[in-house]
Amino acid sequence: MTAINIVIIGYGGMGSYHQKELMPHELVNVIGVYDIAQKAQDKAREAGLTVYDSLEQVLKDASVEAVLIATPNDVHKALSIAALRAGKQVICEKPVAMNVGELDDILAVAAETGNTFMVHQNRRWDPDFLVIRELYQNGQIGDLFQIESRVQGANGIPGDWREQAEHGGGMLLDWGVHLIDQILWLIDNPVKSMAADFSYVLGQEVDDGFILYLTFENGIRSLIEVGTTNYSQLPRWYVKGLNGAAKIDNWDLSGEIVVATNQADLVAPAPIKAGVGLTKTMAPPSEEATKKVAITEVLPEFPSFYQNFYDVLRNGAAPIVKNDEVRKVLSLIDSVFDLVKS
Amino acid sequence: MTAINIVIIGYGGMGSYHQKELMPHELVNVIGVYDIAQKAQDKAREAGLTVYDSLEQVLKDASVEAVLIATPNDVHKALSIAALRAGKQVICEKPVAMNVGELDDILAVAAETGNTFMVHQNRRWDPDFLVIRELYQNGQIGDLFQIESRVQGANGIPGDWREQAEHGGGMLLDWGVHLIDQILWLIDNPVKSMAADFSYVLGQEVDDGFILYLTFENGIRSLIEVGTTNYSQLPRWYVKGLNGAAKIDNWDLSGEIVVATNQADLVAPAPIKAGVGLTKTMAPPSEEATKKVAITEVLPEFPSFYQNFYDVLRNGAAPIVKNDEVRKVLSLIDSVFDLVKS
Repeated sequence: MTAINIVIIGYGGMGSYHQKELMPHELVNVIGVYDIAQKAQDKAREAGLTVYDSLEQVLKDASVEAVLIATPNDVHKALSIAALRAGKQVICEKPVAMNVGELDDILAVAAETGNTFMVHQNRRWDPDFLVIRELYQNGQIGDLFQIESRVQGANGIPGDWREQAEHGGGMLLDWGVHLIDQILWLIDNPVKSMAADFSYVLGQEVDDGFILYLTFENGIRSLIEVGTTNYSQLPRWYVKGLNGAAKIDNWDLSGEIVVATNQADLVAPAPIKAGVGLTKTMAPPSEEATKKVAITEVLPEFPSFYQNFYDVLRNGAAPIVKNDEVRKVLSLIDSVFDLVKS
Repeated sequence: MTAINIVIIGYGGMGSYHQKELMPHELVNVIGVYDIAQKAQDKAREAGLTVYDSLEQVLKDASVEAVLIATPNDVHKALSIAALRAGKQVICEKPVAMNVGELDDILAVAAETGNTFMVHQNRRWDPDFLVIRELYQNGQIGDLFQIESRVQGANGIPGDWREQAEHGGGMLLDWGVHLIDQILWLIDNPVKSMAADFSYVLGQEVDDGFILYLTFENGIRSLIEVGTTNYSQLPRWYVKGLNGAAKIDNWDLSGEIVVATNQADLVAPAPIKAGVGLTKTMAPPSEEATKKVAITEVLPEFPSFYQNFYDVLRNGAAPIVKNDEVRKVLSLIDSVFDLVKS
């Protein structure tokens, strides 16, 4: 087992997070960093890493087998293409590019060179997503027909390039790409129609949030929402199945799974006073009609991102994050921008 | 003070609820009931009420000043017009009619005869709605720019005429009319655009729920949702203001109001690990950045529906539920049906 020698291009929050938290060093060996910012260079040196002086130096270094690109989005394309052409294997942070046109240029060079290009859509490994995926696959609450995925913060857009359109800022590209990737990977069915709306509450040039409603050809609906101006939050996940529902409040997997018991002898719910009115429709089901099930952690049946990257390079494995999947996500994002502009 | 002699036409769940819970008997005096169903007639007799043999008998009875129409929706129009022409004052249950065309026919006769026609949009008096209305008006969390209103049950559509299209069944007409009425009355601004989707999970001929997203000319967004297949529920209300947010979980006013403190010396939130990723955007604001405020009951500054009805008839007061408001709601509902069919 020979570790992959990797250089991190862009040693900001994400680049350093990869190195410190994500990379198993028996699989990937960080041999250096390249970053144009003095501050990032200093941080890399403090972490004991070699700092390259230029991109050329990285690309010419024959000991570098792979690069991780964790820069602002607008330079992903140029860096990826240069690295692929220099014979390097490439991991690229999300969103992979500014639009599908850029991605296609990258993928053409990947195909031409035969080098590996993999996008770090890491939230396929999120524990909350894995619980929803398990519900989707195991039928515990019946076939899921409505899947609502929200992330809501109250801190605005992080004060850096993510506020700037020219760098590919905004929440659809930053967080939307994660939530859309999860949903499209999960449902794996063509989108039939969509509606979308952007939020510009903060008065910035990029969206500070959005709501996206997708209907799929198989009938499933998904509502995807990102907010950065939410002082109170709705649950991270809310899903409805034919035989129950589930709600995951937060990253810590708090929430509930409610399963219908379908007992034959159920008593019809009694009408309740709701506000100033009377309702049977909105009354809670009778006690015996449902049971709550604890949410338990689900381990993925697939390896970690870096294990998979290693297996792709060393053992000819298929990538978990496939480029045609990444392309579908970015294509949908392009469509959302077009829809809202129109 | 002379009580208004009223006859209840349609003594089902709502008709009897009016008589038992809503009508202040010093203001309205129920002198009888008319219903085509034997069961309802029996129930009325048990309640000690006179049962009329026919509509004609009601309309010819000079001692009857007003009627309450609480029948299936498809006969509201014919009954309302007959009663108005017979010189009766009319209260009609919601939804007022099957479509705006029917309503216009009713309103023409009301104008022609000079008799009062008032629709029982009672959820303007709901305590949860009054809390949101107070937040909207008092600026406690800043100007509200996003208002989400949901009612979610797990009992399906009540098993009667509400399941049938010919009687005006379905959840958009049944519950949607309440939620839309609240929102349009509150925001009082033209709708700029909308998106909508119906749910037919139960496989019935009418919608068992819907989602409606409205943008108003003043920039406010509202999401309105009704479900009858929800074994777990999202909050009744979720609203965002420029300076806070509020969530009302249920009819009992549980929930939270969160206000931003806007302290000058706030520490920026630290990034958190969320799932397998790192996020500053979705980290909770620092402790000092927000404070929670209890939700307290808000009393309306306007009289009860029946007090208002009495004041309209006896003292020339303006109705709280105005027919042009009711018409706007029904017109929007017509548009939603058109949009989803198209």
